[in-house]
Amino acid sequence: MKLIVQKYGGTSVGTVERIKAVAARIKRYVENGYAVVVVVSAMGKTTDQLIDLAKQITRNPDKREMDMLLSTGEQVSIALLAMALHEIGINAISYTGSQVKVITDGNFSNARIQSIATDRIQKSLEENKVVIVAGFQGIDQEENITTLGRGGSDTSAVALATVLGTRDCEIYTDVDGVFTADPRIVPGTKKLKEISYEEMLELARLGAGVLHSRSVEFAKKYNIRLHVRSSFNDNEGTIVMPREEMMEKFVISGVTSKDDEAKITIRDIPDRPGVASMLFGELGKQKVYVNMIVQSTGKDGKASISFTVLKNDLDKALKICESLKEKLGASSIDYKENIAIVSAVGVGMLSSWGVAGRMFDVLSKHNINIEMISTSEIGISCVIDAMYTELAVKAIHKEFIESNE
Amino acid sequence: MKLIVQKYGGTSVGTVERIKAVAARIKRYVENGYAVVVVVSAMGKTTDQLIDLAKQITRNPDKREMDMLLSTGEQVSIALLAMALHEIGINAISYTGSQVKVITDGNFSNARIQSIATDRIQKSLEENKVVIVAGFQGIDQEENITTLGRGGSDTSAVALATVLGTRDCEIYTDVDGVFTADPRIVPGTKKLKEISYEEMLELARLGAGVLHSRSVEFAKKYNIRLHVRSSFNDNEGTIVMPREEMMEKFVISGVTSKDDEAKITIRDIPDRPGVASMLFGELGKQKVYVNMIVQSTGKDGKASISFTVLKNDLDKALKICESLKEKLGASSIDYKENIAIVSAVGVGMLSSWGVAGRMFDVLSKHNINIEMISTSEIGISCVIDAMYTELAVKAIHKEFIESNE
Repeated sequence: MKLIVQKYGGTSVGTVERIKAVAARIKRYVENGYAVVVVVSAMGKTTDQLIDLAKQITRNPDKREMDMLLSTGEQVSIALLAMALHEIGINAISYTGSQVKVITDGNFSNARIQSIATDRIQKSLEENKVVIVAGFQGIDQEENITTLGRGGSDTSAVALATVLGTRDCEIYTDVDGVFTADPRIVPGTKKLKEISYEEMLELARLGAGVLHSRSVEFAKKYNIRLHVRSSFNDNEGTIVMPREEMMEKFVISGVTSKDDEAKITIRDIPDRPGVASMLFGELGKQKVYVNMIVQSTGKDGKASISFTVLKNDLDKALKICESLKEKLGASSIDYKENIAIVSAVGVGMLSSWGVAGRMFDVLSKHNINIEMISTSEIGISCVIDAMYTELAVKAIHKEFIESNE
Repeated sequence: MKLIVQKYGGTSVGTVERIKAVAARIKRYVENGYAVVVVVSAMGKTTDQLIDLAKQITRNPDKREMDMLLSTGEQVSIALLAMALHEIGINAISYTGSQVKVITDGNFSNARIQSIATDRIQKSLEENKVVIVAGFQGIDQEENITTLGRGGSDTSAVALATVLGTRDCEIYTDVDGVFTADPRIVPGTKKLKEISYEEMLELARLGAGVLHSRSVEFAKKYNIRLHVRSSFNDNEGTIVMPREEMMEKFVISGVTSKDDEAKITIRDIPDRPGVASMLFGELGKQKVYVNMIVQSTGKDGKASISFTVLKNDLDKALKICESLKEKLGASSIDYKENIAIVSAVGVGMLSSWGVAGRMFDVLSKHNINIEMISTSEIGISCVIDAMYTELAVKAIHKEFIESNE
């Protein structure tokens, strides 16, 4: 019997009707001879409602108690889904993270899975039951309930596929798969049939949020094929897989933009060793996440450093810069909030000559000034003025993706 | 350090504000040198809402999955209460039934506690933490989540007091304690300072629902003093205790009425052995709960049997009677729905001559016809026409309680 792990996200089980639809889908798999292990998230806005309750009590909820609270959301979903399966004649049983021994470290609210016991799941599968496991949750060595943080249920699903020895893991969500760009911005966007782990990770990092990077890293490590698809229709989605196994390879598989970062520029720093490490060391120590960094050297032996931080951290970062200004010997510190980072991602870049050049050309043709550039093995990102975001994404998408049709 | 177990019911933790009030109360106990173990129910209507969700999915939810679902209600409460205590500077930690190994039998939805591990609770108490335990829930030998049925959180509290070796158990609710009658019916009602386990059990059986009988039986068995009181004020409530320890003893400590039963009368049954056992044997087999039974013998060697059943079971009971009518040799079967059972309960009855006679006198003086009578060691119940319920309760209360002032 072929084993498949399916994960249904919050919108997929957002209402009683949706839960019934999910049960009907699982039934089709069972009737087609599959053994099915299901991972479920909390219903729709449940987690937000629980967080809101906690916030009404305290501004700084204890993380252990927060995990105790939030893990109830998935527990409700698994019980209801089991009932919905029973109602249509499918044998099913639900398990909490604790019951199938999803052991994690003790890092409440952001725990990492260390092991999962398979005996109980295997036994239920042998009894021809659909096994439903609460996503997002585990227990630490002392049986305290832990949660896995953002994208945690995806990680639960990938971990279960791994320990149960199947490569097939379906991630059901409310979109049809991974697109070459945000369909709300770019009308000519295409759904990808396949994408590599590396591209998926790069897209996640650069603002395309279908999957959380931790689950993709996990899938990459254990060679799990993630089929990202919609629970609202029967369309094939996008399979996230090893690069070597991909049938279709595009130069660029996705164009993304994000506008949650701001740019800080420090001017006229004497160009001597230790300056960058002093600045970024201090930012790191104070937990300010720095994304792009560009250093330019002027003629007079003085340098300017520009970097981006999350807008949420901007005030904190500016304070740190001010406190170091004298030590750095800088002349001025300024910042810009209305920026966007537009990126092109694709494994094809590795072999295609001149992708970066073509991208800069496209932007220049549209009179879009590039304020910063950073490149990785499979991605190019440019900081531009936020007002040109849509134009830039459309133009890059047209150049690399639509023109290849 | 003196250890106390406190249980807060659903209305006591019904809102965020109520949870904060409970935390403030617990804080006062901690500041007065108490070690506190708290048992909490689900917030207000949470359990009803969860049941409603399940009903939208299936009319016959699997009991295991129902327990999985319902146990989340208490888990939410314990986490929020822990946060509320932290917020006011009190060290606290919450535990699910699973985490403190509340082991029950596998009778889902109505499980019985078999044991509770105390090591984890003791350790937390030694760390000067308030220990908050989810009421109403446990796990069976296979770690399936079970719930304890009606009044389950009270039972959890009594069980915890027992295993932790304290006699002090406070049951916080939304009423001030146990009253001599329902204050909504009888204006002259009094709050009892003390009541015996036996009287409390009799009151519970006869419709006065402050405590569920299982928790009282448990308290009686393990000699726990249950202080039933309101979480909405600081008034002393009622202490349920061993009869020997009571300071004040009334002839009658409570007058109750219930109207959820109906009366069935089977006439002209030949008065021979085996008739009653055939009838009540069959009713029992089909799980129809029979309360009062009266058999009267006529002159012609024929008997009439009257008995009461829950109104919910009336149709089922009538069908069983009809199916046995021929075998029984009965002439007719009729029933009456608009009846009430009014009862007087008190340990004083044991020593006071003529309580029953006085009660019948009172009813007769008010021209209330008594349709059935049943007596126990500490209670007398009369079936009357439902229209006289209020009048009967007021008259009996006046005769036995108000007149003793």
